[in-house]
Amino acid sequence: MAFKIGLLGLGTVGTGTAQIILDPAGRNPLLQDITIHKVGVRSLDKPRQVQFLPGIMTTDLEAVVNDPDIDIVVELLGGLEPARSLILQAISQKKHVVTANKAVIARYGDEIYEAANQAGVYVLLEAAVGGGIPIIKPLKQSLGANRITSIIGIINGTTNYILTQMTTEGADFGEVLAEAQKLGYAEADPTADVDGLDAADKIAILASLGFGGRVKREDVYCEGIRKVSAADITYADRLGFVIKLLAIAKGTGGEASDRLQLRVHPTLVSKTHPLASINGVYNAVLVEGNPLGQVMFYGPGAGAGPTASAVVSDIMNIVAILQSSGPNNGLDPLLSCVHQHFCQITPIEQIETRFYARFLTKDLPGVIGHLGTAFGDHQVSLESVVQIGFQGEQAEIVVVTHNVCEGNFRTALDEIRNLEAIADIPSILRVL
Amino acid sequence: MAFKIGLLGLGTVGTGTAQIILDPAGRNPLLQDITIHKVGVRSLDKPRQVQFLPGIMTTDLEAVVNDPDIDIVVELLGGLEPARSLILQAISQKKHVVTANKAVIARYGDEIYEAANQAGVYVLLEAAVGGGIPIIKPLKQSLGANRITSIIGIINGTTNYILTQMTTEGADFGEVLAEAQKLGYAEADPTADVDGLDAADKIAILASLGFGGRVKREDVYCEGIRKVSAADITYADRLGFVIKLLAIAKGTGGEASDRLQLRVHPTLVSKTHPLASINGVYNAVLVEGNPLGQVMFYGPGAGAGPTASAVVSDIMNIVAILQSSGPNNGLDPLLSCVHQHFCQITPIEQIETRFYARFLTKDLPGVIGHLGTAFGDHQVSLESVVQIGFQGEQAEIVVVTHNVCEGNFRTALDEIRNLEAIADIPSILRVL
Repeated sequence: MAFKIGLLGLGTVGTGTAQIILDPAGRNPLLQDITIHKVGVRSLDKPRQVQFLPGIMTTDLEAVVNDPDIDIVVELLGGLEPARSLILQAISQKKHVVTANKAVIARYGDEIYEAANQAGVYVLLEAAVGGGIPIIKPLKQSLGANRITSIIGIINGTTNYILTQMTTEGADFGEVLAEAQKLGYAEADPTADVDGLDAADKIAILASLGFGGRVKREDVYCEGIRKVSAADITYADRLGFVIKLLAIAKGTGGEASDRLQLRVHPTLVSKTHPLASINGVYNAVLVEGNPLGQVMFYGPGAGAGPTASAVVSDIMNIVAILQSSGPNNGLDPLLSCVHQHFCQITPIEQIETRFYARFLTKDLPGVIGHLGTAFGDHQVSLESVVQIGFQGEQAEIVVVTHNVCEGNFRTALDEIRNLEAIADIPSILRVL
Repeated sequence: MAFKIGLLGLGTVGTGTAQIILDPAGRNPLLQDITIHKVGVRSLDKPRQVQFLPGIMTTDLEAVVNDPDIDIVVELLGGLEPARSLILQAISQKKHVVTANKAVIARYGDEIYEAANQAGVYVLLEAAVGGGIPIIKPLKQSLGANRITSIIGIINGTTNYILTQMTTEGADFGEVLAEAQKLGYAEADPTADVDGLDAADKIAILASLGFGGRVKREDVYCEGIRKVSAADITYADRLGFVIKLLAIAKGTGGEASDRLQLRVHPTLVSKTHPLASINGVYNAVLVEGNPLGQVMFYGPGAGAGPTASAVVSDIMNIVAILQSSGPNNGLDPLLSCVHQHFCQITPIEQIETRFYARFLTKDLPGVIGHLGTAFGDHQVSLESVVQIGFQGEQAEIVVVTHNVCEGNFRTALDEIRNLEAIADIPSILRVL
């Protein structure tokens, strides 16, 4: 029995998805039961890498989601609207939905899953996080026996490419961004990537799955990589670290496991940590739980082929269920979203983390004492204070703290900023 | 609605499994619908880390698989018999089965899945490969859109621990094995691990899932790590490699994708390869496919907690399906075994691979010419020939080849063995 797909969007990922479905030989035989029934696009005149029979392509996106013959709507438009409305309309027509749209799910997941549960349909989103890496389904179906304690990911390929290039070439952010834009690894408007917004969308989704509660996108604390300098990468290297943009969700792993930390920021990662060697456009997600310990999922975080692999796997999962289902089936509780409550998020001032801070100072011998006193007065315990170089007349001092309360650290910094000997604090970064 | 489990075996993994099910707070809520109804053990008198109500534990294993109240039989006995017979009996009673038993599935998978398909029940085995790492379900459910070209794994923790220790300590195999046995990382009879048999069981299972055909366990070519010496590890290091016991399944990734290479052997792996940094008892599986590219799954390959996490995830998957199913459901084609044919395996003589070989020779200047000629006469192209040291009077020469036909390489070696200048060929290893 053949199942009919309605595809919304025929850009990079849409084209990759169609190419897999139209050429099933050598892949899982279930693909032979899937046909592309309609493809909704913005323009019929654009040259395309895939060809469809007449009548399949249409600019009427509503007609795709309303077509009574279609079993599964695959939303690959990106952006918030009309994607959100079309997804909701497809659900109201009792169609299952597959989407790669992290932005819509991170913001409107609540509304979308309520509607999907009422309609008795699935909304799957493997491609929304980590491109081709299976991470959504493993979190839903393979790790539920555990009390998850943390999910830490490198889940934005653009920023990981930029940081990797900065590290290997010793170049500054601006240069590498321009190069990445030329190569197509960064968009003309790089905001969503370099400011951490894309990673924040994704960690909101992963946290919701791993910690079993809904997450408000605006609760994710977010810092991008614009301020990371070549100097910091060099100093981090000397101290045994690399700098990565990490997306972090941390719970308590116990009964009160829905008190979560949720944050995206550039982070010093020890070179011996499994995430330290994830370079270029690759992504990786490290999940820690009890009794499992650490597992890591690694692979290509973007690109037509990998992302289409994830999209098609979701389509196949739904088709497998439809094919084996009798009447009166309910939704599989591991594949649908059964969360009823929102996770409580710890404000950033209350989290505990290690810090790296770089200071430019005028008067070296006196200032180390002043720094130590100011930090000590606010319960900020220091792991190392190193005078790492000079910039002209000014000494450059790098401080690494133990695990401290972020609020205390910030209060101490406010005090330090007013010290006469302190010329500048050019960087403050967290340490994993 | 509660679903009832019959547990066979209460060793390390059985105990870990029971501990998770008996303490569901903070884990996926579906666990609250699972109860342990009977536990089959060999002895009732052994001290246990988990306690059950009277009447739950029994030494009558048949009574567990025949109990009409039990929905899912969880086989954690290990070994071939009575595990195989009990699994078949459970299936004949229309019970779903979860097992961690790679040896039984690798040898009797054909018989077991035929029976399971006829009875309409699932036999899930996430814990059989890679301990806590989700790899079976991702291969079944997340990667099927791809033409898989290779699956390469470090899937035996004992040998990876031994090779890692040999590398970091410069120690020889025998010493490290003795130490590993003392620490409990290797068994008193280490054969199954160090001779590669356990890894061969596991790659047979992964290959079957990845390449969509049944695999005969005896078709897996298998070499263990007993002959790997500290000297080879040192020389490999100088050439930019580490030595790992790899389990390799390679296809053609095309229409004829069921012509497979299947092999387990110690292998030189470039230090820049993702598998090179997998150390100690950790496991990792690298899957390559089209259009996906490479994804890697990494985590703890053994141990009570990780393995129990995988066992319980399988139980939860079955419960989720039972809970959401109406009457007359068929088996989900992605979760059941639908293969009808056996994969064709390429004989080891016909594979193409790179080789590393170490020679002890008497007469250095002449011998390099002789080596080069003998290899050249059999189409074995050399990447490097390095005189790497002396052992007494004898020069030590290390040769690394390009990709060559294994049969040709062996014929050349037979010829070289008869050269007067060659005193010994202490090691021959493949290079990834």
